[in-house]
Amino acid sequence: MNSFASVLALNGGSSSIRFAIYAPEGKLRLQLAGKVDRIGLRGTSLTVIDPAGPPAFVLPLAAVDHRAAVGRLLDWLEKQPAFAAVGAVGHRVVHGMKHATPERITPRLLRELRRLIPYDPDHLPREIGLIEAIRERFPRLPQVACFDTAFHRSMPAVAKMLAIPRRYTADGVERYGFHGLSYAYLLEELGRLDPRAARGRVIFAHLGNGASLAAVRGGRSIDTSMGFTPAAGLVMSTRSGDLDPGVFSYLARREGMTPVQFEKMVNHASGLLGVSGISPDVRDLLARERRSRPAAEALALFCYQAKKWIGAYVAALGGLDTLVFAGGIGEHAPVIRERICGGLEFLGVRLDRRGNRQNAGIISTRTARVTVRVIRTDEELMIARSVCRLLGVRS
Amino acid sequence: MNSFASVLALNGGSSSIRFAIYAPEGKLRLQLAGKVDRIGLRGTSLTVIDPAGPPAFVLPLAAVDHRAAVGRLLDWLEKQPAFAAVGAVGHRVVHGMKHATPERITPRLLRELRRLIPYDPDHLPREIGLIEAIRERFPRLPQVACFDTAFHRSMPAVAKMLAIPRRYTADGVERYGFHGLSYAYLLEELGRLDPRAARGRVIFAHLGNGASLAAVRGGRSIDTSMGFTPAAGLVMSTRSGDLDPGVFSYLARREGMTPVQFEKMVNHASGLLGVSGISPDVRDLLARERRSRPAAEALALFCYQAKKWIGAYVAALGGLDTLVFAGGIGEHAPVIRERICGGLEFLGVRLDRRGNRQNAGIISTRTARVTVRVIRTDEELMIARSVCRLLGVRS
Repeated sequence: MNSFASVLALNGGSSSIRFAIYAPEGKLRLQLAGKVDRIGLRGTSLTVIDPAGPPAFVLPLAAVDHRAAVGRLLDWLEKQPAFAAVGAVGHRVVHGMKHATPERITPRLLRELRRLIPYDPDHLPREIGLIEAIRERFPRLPQVACFDTAFHRSMPAVAKMLAIPRRYTADGVERYGFHGLSYAYLLEELGRLDPRAARGRVIFAHLGNGASLAAVRGGRSIDTSMGFTPAAGLVMSTRSGDLDPGVFSYLARREGMTPVQFEKMVNHASGLLGVSGISPDVRDLLARERRSRPAAEALALFCYQAKKWIGAYVAALGGLDTLVFAGGIGEHAPVIRERICGGLEFLGVRLDRRGNRQNAGIISTRTARVTVRVIRTDEELMIARSVCRLLGVRS
Repeated sequence: MNSFASVLALNGGSSSIRFAIYAPEGKLRLQLAGKVDRIGLRGTSLTVIDPAGPPAFVLPLAAVDHRAAVGRLLDWLEKQPAFAAVGAVGHRVVHGMKHATPERITPRLLRELRRLIPYDPDHLPREIGLIEAIRERFPRLPQVACFDTAFHRSMPAVAKMLAIPRRYTADGVERYGFHGLSYAYLLEELGRLDPRAARGRVIFAHLGNGASLAAVRGGRSIDTSMGFTPAAGLVMSTRSGDLDPGVFSYLARREGMTPVQFEKMVNHASGLLGVSGISPDVRDLLARERRSRPAAEALALFCYQAKKWIGAYVAALGGLDTLVFAGGIGEHAPVIRERICGGLEFLGVRLDRRGNRQNAGIISTRTARVTVRVIRTDEELMIARSVCRLLGVRS
């Protein structure tokens, strides 16, 4: 890879792919970004954001499935002037098991990822498909896997253990945690904004459709709320978070629920959507909560559980210096932040009402013992940085 | 019931039945107590404690199953002088669904309990058997059901909700919480020892084979760690506590685990036993932890999770005034209390080393902001008190 080449960052989700091209000019500069939405559904579309060009625009994409959507995306990308300078591709890979750092994708790593599919059948097959599509079309472009679990490999054993029979640990059933690219980015940003705070006791709250917390001390993750799978931890848009394990056996007895149905329920029909019966989206629920008790209850549960997890992590950290909100909800929903922080005054958490309403960088009062921040997270930029560091590109 | 009659308290577990007879002399005075152990196993035995008599002694009991064990226990009880004065019987009933207070057992309540069996198939059938055996043999003795869930009915809706689809709430799938008789007793004791503290922000930690926490404010339970079933919450002797719901689907895919096997695993093969692979008993593990890493890890996980749950409940309470340890582990394992409290100094928790080693009533330092107590819990006495209050006996 040419040390002045651009980097293409790819962040593939279950029904979307985000992409961004960065040029290594001084620091990484965004040249083109966008996303493919509604993959595998009707109305697949490509949204394009050119920071130097016209406002974002949307193109329809004729693609019946994930493979076709990837093909159409690459067709389109190839024609963009910014793509000509791309010298490497970085991928978010959701599940990396024991991998603790980004890695160059080799045939050997690809074989390993295929072996890991049983641990993450929802994400890995599509991520592997994306990697293979790039390799077929641009066989010389080096590719890098950036594992979303890597950030949490520093957790102590006690945070990784699940309280189930020991033999499953040998099989790899433990807490991995996710959102690691987001946490790595947020930690770097915090280090830029306040180097001392980044070495202290920090809770990062990545609250989006998927939501998790990370407890970080001395720059290392010591615990995180997602677990062996992303269904664990907090109440999320459509996921239940941690659950009484007796619930499943009851539903199996009561209505013959199968493991597959249970998995679908806790991943796609629970959380805000399940409790409200209305929507998985915090914005919809906030708009309706005055008239709809289920909407209000879903929001109350989301905030109450987040508050309790914060309390749990403060106990794990032995106190708290900094609380950082990020993710779609964390960055844009002042009222949710306010409800989560309400009652945490005993910890020294005090929000500045005005700063919070404005989604300011620091939303705690000047005299508060705990600094509460809002930081816009950027997984694609973290992918690009990782690629540059691994491949020795200047940035 | 004669207002000077004695009360028989019965506390039936899955493989044991504890009993106690109290005479209403001034306050309730214990006259005879004991338990039947190893019901349904080889070597069923009856242990008898006569506070005024000789040291505790053990009698073998010829009983092949639960029904026979109940019969032999009643045969023996009938012959005891203390039994002649018994004018009412109180039962611990583990699952009481919506019942918020103790209730006289009528044919109607019995019919309702039978309908509730699907919610608690492990306990209710045996408890109903015990009630029926007493009714057959002593048809005139009034019986009272003391629900282990009743204490937590005061919890706000947000603490009762599970983040699964709303239709299950209508079916009664919500957080009930257990250990309620223990918590009710502990709260009364705390009120006797320090009335102001009992009205403040309190966390009760009932740590025995089953382990749970209750967050109490203004004398009311506002949250508790056990859930729809007793498998939820903390890591316990053989139960997992709350779990990543994705673990089950993985095990179902990976090794064809059935719902019945999963239920067995999370209730009987997880927790301390599962992680250590050695023993479900904290004493065994403490004796081995220096030589055995699995033993040390199991204990570390138990303490770490308890610490985090305490942190979560402090957040729910908005701070903490009193922390009470109870139950077999909570009352008798100073080193476990020490490890759970370690790192909570930021909350104002500071143990007095010597008091803690001696299992003293107050184990925090004199200047600590949070008072940490050890209180011996007594579910049987709480049952007897409830019976007296309901039936209007002087005590």
